[in-house]
Amino acid sequence: MIYLDNNATTAIHPEVLKEMMPFFTEQHGNPTSNHRFGRRAHTAIEEAREKVAYAVNAHPSQIVFTASGTESNNTIINGIAEGYSDSIFAYSAIEHPCISKPIEALKKRGFSSIEVSVDQNGLVNMESLNDGLSDKPTFISVMMANNETGVIQNMSEIVHWAKKNKAIVHTDAVQALGKINVDFEALNVDALTISSHKIYGPQGVAALVVNNKIDVVPFIKGGGQEKGLRSGTENLAGIIGFGKACERAAGNAVIFREKIKPLQAHLEKHLASMGAVVFGDQTERLPNTSFFAFPRLDGVTLLTALDKKGFAIASGSACSSNSNEPSHVLLAMGIDKDLAQGAIRVSMGVDVTMEQIKEFIVVLKSEVARLKQLAAMAA
Amino acid sequence: MIYLDNNATTAIHPEVLKEMMPFFTEQHGNPTSNHRFGRRAHTAIEEAREKVAYAVNAHPSQIVFTASGTESNNTIINGIAEGYSDSIFAYSAIEHPCISKPIEALKKRGFSSIEVSVDQNGLVNMESLNDGLSDKPTFISVMMANNETGVIQNMSEIVHWAKKNKAIVHTDAVQALGKINVDFEALNVDALTISSHKIYGPQGVAALVVNNKIDVVPFIKGGGQEKGLRSGTENLAGIIGFGKACERAAGNAVIFREKIKPLQAHLEKHLASMGAVVFGDQTERLPNTSFFAFPRLDGVTLLTALDKKGFAIASGSACSSNSNEPSHVLLAMGIDKDLAQGAIRVSMGVDVTMEQIKEFIVVLKSEVARLKQLAAMAA
Repeated sequence: MIYLDNNATTAIHPEVLKEMMPFFTEQHGNPTSNHRFGRRAHTAIEEAREKVAYAVNAHPSQIVFTASGTESNNTIINGIAEGYSDSIFAYSAIEHPCISKPIEALKKRGFSSIEVSVDQNGLVNMESLNDGLSDKPTFISVMMANNETGVIQNMSEIVHWAKKNKAIVHTDAVQALGKINVDFEALNVDALTISSHKIYGPQGVAALVVNNKIDVVPFIKGGGQEKGLRSGTENLAGIIGFGKACERAAGNAVIFREKIKPLQAHLEKHLASMGAVVFGDQTERLPNTSFFAFPRLDGVTLLTALDKKGFAIASGSACSSNSNEPSHVLLAMGIDKDLAQGAIRVSMGVDVTMEQIKEFIVVLKSEVARLKQLAAMAA
Repeated sequence: MIYLDNNATTAIHPEVLKEMMPFFTEQHGNPTSNHRFGRRAHTAIEEAREKVAYAVNAHPSQIVFTASGTESNNTIINGIAEGYSDSIFAYSAIEHPCISKPIEALKKRGFSSIEVSVDQNGLVNMESLNDGLSDKPTFISVMMANNETGVIQNMSEIVHWAKKNKAIVHTDAVQALGKINVDFEALNVDALTISSHKIYGPQGVAALVVNNKIDVVPFIKGGGQEKGLRSGTENLAGIIGFGKACERAAGNAVIFREKIKPLQAHLEKHLASMGAVVFGDQTERLPNTSFFAFPRLDGVTLLTALDKKGFAIASGSACSSNSNEPSHVLLAMGIDKDLAQGAIRVSMGVDVTMEQIKEFIVVLKSEVARLKQLAAMAA
């Protein structure tokens, strides 16, 4: 089985797991406890916090550990809603539902929202930001790299616009971290989301990186952990694993740029020759992601056929894999609904090889041919 | 080092860790993915869900996995606030801050709340419920067993009152599970919170058990995992570990009743002879918890001395260990503030031995005598 669905989740790296193990055994403890088990746990978490901060060029005091990228995004959105009265929330049309859904829910409570359109490449329309907004947003969220297409936004333009318009700016960098450079300070955003299980760390742990000047009212409330910003007993082993995974992020980004990008180019050359449409390929994308469709071929059917042949790929994002609706990302890019229905995603991991990609291309060719023949017979 | 702070967090059981390991390695996957990695992960989560449901005599469809007891409690409270207009929230004065804080936050949004008093034993005052409420609450939350005192509420009386008054009733059973019987159906509550790391499972995973007839609006919103009730990629290995830990809960409760309760009695006999006050000892308590104070002896000072001698205990709850305020639980019970300042907690685990408790008593006696002498010299 060859796993080409790394944007959904990655396999934990053995070194990460090794680092976690003592915290499942003799090093257990509640970091808030006043005895040596507690102090040791506390120290270990602070060391992990430094590693996470270092990976995104932030200060450790800016790291809030959460349980998922989704929770981080819910935290910043709800935190702004409570912290700033009459907030207006802007977000791009290609954001993950963990951005759009909490904002939609706030609309029911009387808050306003603005969905910012994207062009055919999936890039935020700067004109629609400059001219098209009836209100000045309090907050704007644009994901650094899209989970489905891999398209990388021009963050400097967006941040420039946000600063000029005095909007708090957040980016979901969950898919960017460990594949391209993510620099909190250089990005000049106010808040940023990252997640462990996308970078060969454990599931169930993530972070919100947030400028301390922003008035984020706590979302999950209780015992006051994470300087009050996120209550609940800390996931000690998970946080340790996330820290270790972050140590590996910069090295992985080099591997993606130097080793994986050529594999992506090789794959996409063959995809073009097979008549596939690769979404977002006219702009800069993550070096591991190819989101594509063959006209008149259903994506889930192709995914299922490839699964039987030993290749794990995705149809859009994992979060919407259970839905039959075409990708909202593709629809926002103006892609025809029928073509969008055919979309499948290959997202390579750091350890994928040219041989595996070649093998995948052979199987993809034969399965596409077989399915087209079946469709022709049925027609 | 002898660990007597199991109400803060427990050491993961080796069998639990063993069950988790494959999901950190070859069995990784995102349960929402459509390929075999995803399907396997999905199946494993549903098996864990059955184990969790079985442990509390609920239906698997009633289990919502979360990342902490705190998140479960925030989920039910905010879910009710959004699901029922003009909700009035009642909660006992000894609830954990992860109940009181989210309710306090809702008050700022115009919701009403009622704090229900407890008697000197820490039991909810049924008279104050029957006569003292100006408004009929929409929702009431009373914890099954208190984390600090171990006092077990008379849930049947509280639920009877709630049903009569058409209030949705929730109990935080985080400290009860695995120590006494927790039966969702027999309790007849509408919602119940349990957590993995209190029952020898991993940190970072918990559940909200909830009657499907209750209209709980999702708290963490996004991709729609957990039937839409809790979005975010599932903590696969954590959930597997929680399931395994739940399998052991009933057996642990037997050990606590038969083996640990006599140790508690032995300890408390000695505490009485040393002049300690054991809080809540006039009513039924968890078999592992002794919360006590020596008049005129500071709790944190004693905790620190015991830590140096190799015993890990707590001063109140782990969540408030960093605060110098006396326990709100003890103050609600009418305990004098000076005495409350001396409170320390021993919470035994399933594997504690009589020898360890005898050793603890010897050290406690000598440390108390030493500190009293120091205090006398300073006076």
